[in-house]
Order: sequence, then C-alpha cells, then structure tokens
Amino acid sequence: LKMDPDALAKAFVEHYYRTFDTNRAGLANLYQEGSMLTFEGSKVQGAQAIVEKLVALPFQQCQHVISTVDCQPSGPASGVLVFVSGSLQLAGEQHALKFSQMFHLMPIPQGSYYVFNDIFRLNYA
Amino acid sequence: LKMDPDALAKAFVEHYYRTFDTNRAGLANLYQEGSMLTFEGSKVQGAQAIVEKLVALPFQQCQHVISTVDCQPSGPASGVLVFVSGSLQLAGEQHALKFSQMFHLMPIPQGSYYVFNDIFRLNYA
Repeated sequence: LKMDPDALAKAFVEHYYRTFDTNRAGLANLYQEGSMLTFEGSKVQGAQAIVEKLVALPFQQCQHVISTVDCQPSGPASGVLVFVSGSLQLAGEQHALKFSQMFHLMPIPQGSYYVFNDIFRLNYA
Repeated sequence: LKMDPDALAKAFVEHYYRTFDTNRAGLANLYQEGSMLTFEGSKVQGAQAIVEKLVALPFQQCQHVISTVDCQPSGPASGVLVFVSGSLQLAGEQHALKFSQMFHLMPIPQGSYYVFNDIFRLNYA
C-alpha cells in the first residue's frame, strides 16, 4: 500500500494529535529506538525516552487544533516530511498557545511509517 | 570537512537569511533541480522556479530576525533537518510577521550542502 504523501500526512496528523490528546502514552507506538525529539530545545532519543518526556509535560488535559499541514517527500529513502502549525489549548487556560511542529516519517517494512524526527516549538506572540 | 549538525545549521541559517535580505536572487546557488519549496501552501520545484517564486514575493526590502534554530540528522543519507522560528520585518510595515520554516539540507560530493526541502509558513497571531 503506497499512500500519496498528502493523504499520509493528513492521516498521520489526525492520528498523532488525537492520540496525544486522549492517550499520550500510546504515542510510543509511533517512535522507534533511533527516533529523535527536540521539544522546546530539549533533545531526547528513543521511543521510551520520548514518551516519558511527553507524558511528563506539565499539563494533563490538552487539545490540539490544527491550522495547516504541509508535506514533501524527503528523498530516496521514501520518507515524508510533515510540517504542522496550530494551537494548543490547555485545560483551565484562557488563551491557546500557537505552535509549529515538524515530523520526518520513515517507512517500515510492514507497510506503515514511524516518526524518525520530531521538532516542536511554541510560537510566542 | 564534516561539520557537526548544530554548527552547520547555525552557519546555514545565517547565510540563508542574510542572502534573502540582501540579494534574494543569490539563493539560487542553495537549491538544485530536485529541490522543493512549499511557501504558504504553494509548491514549486527546481532551483530556478524556487528563486523566481522568492524574487516575485510582494515585498522588496525585508529583514529576518531569528528566534530559534533546532536541528537533527535526517537519516543514513547524512542529511540535516533545520527548523527555524523568527520574525520578518517588511519595509514600511509597523509590525513584524512571525514565521516558521524548515529546511532539509543534503550533502553534495564537493563537501557542501544544498536545500532539498524547504517549507515556510507565517504564524498568524
């Protein structure tokens, strides 16, 4: 099954943020040992360390609202780059936080994809 | 010459935006035929088309101010992902525009890098 990059990016983004907002620990399935996350400048590597970082963020309930999704093929290894902008509403906070995030998705032999690169930044107004 | 990714990213970002702000047509040297640009959702491919797009943007004088630069190696092909946030001041405009941009730099045999992927988005407040 070969999805076109736009359809893949859209499906991935919906799945990723729905999982983040409802069952953050479930994101572990989307990363592998070589995966990297840079979250607000802080770097961690490997699925376990990445999910520990995400689960330990200082907020529990949150809701991501996506504004834009752009994607491009990343080269001969059949990866896909996904670039997201949106806002993050934290429970009990009046104003949503704007963010930008990029993912580099790499194919796995079983026909799906995992997140190899993940970089997240809040966009301060 | 093998630069560490952080030093490469910093040097690239300084060079890219200085060139953009002083001699936009000179950016052609940083792209190749397979390069892709997605600018505010509009896709173009190839160094010539990319630079035509950038030169034709509806502003002449501008100044980029960089807030953050994150980078990660992109995989076995020795590419480097660079994720930038900052603001763009247009001549005659009172308020700067916030933006986020990502680049995927790929090595060339002569020992330098070119931009294979480029995705740009303004971050509306």
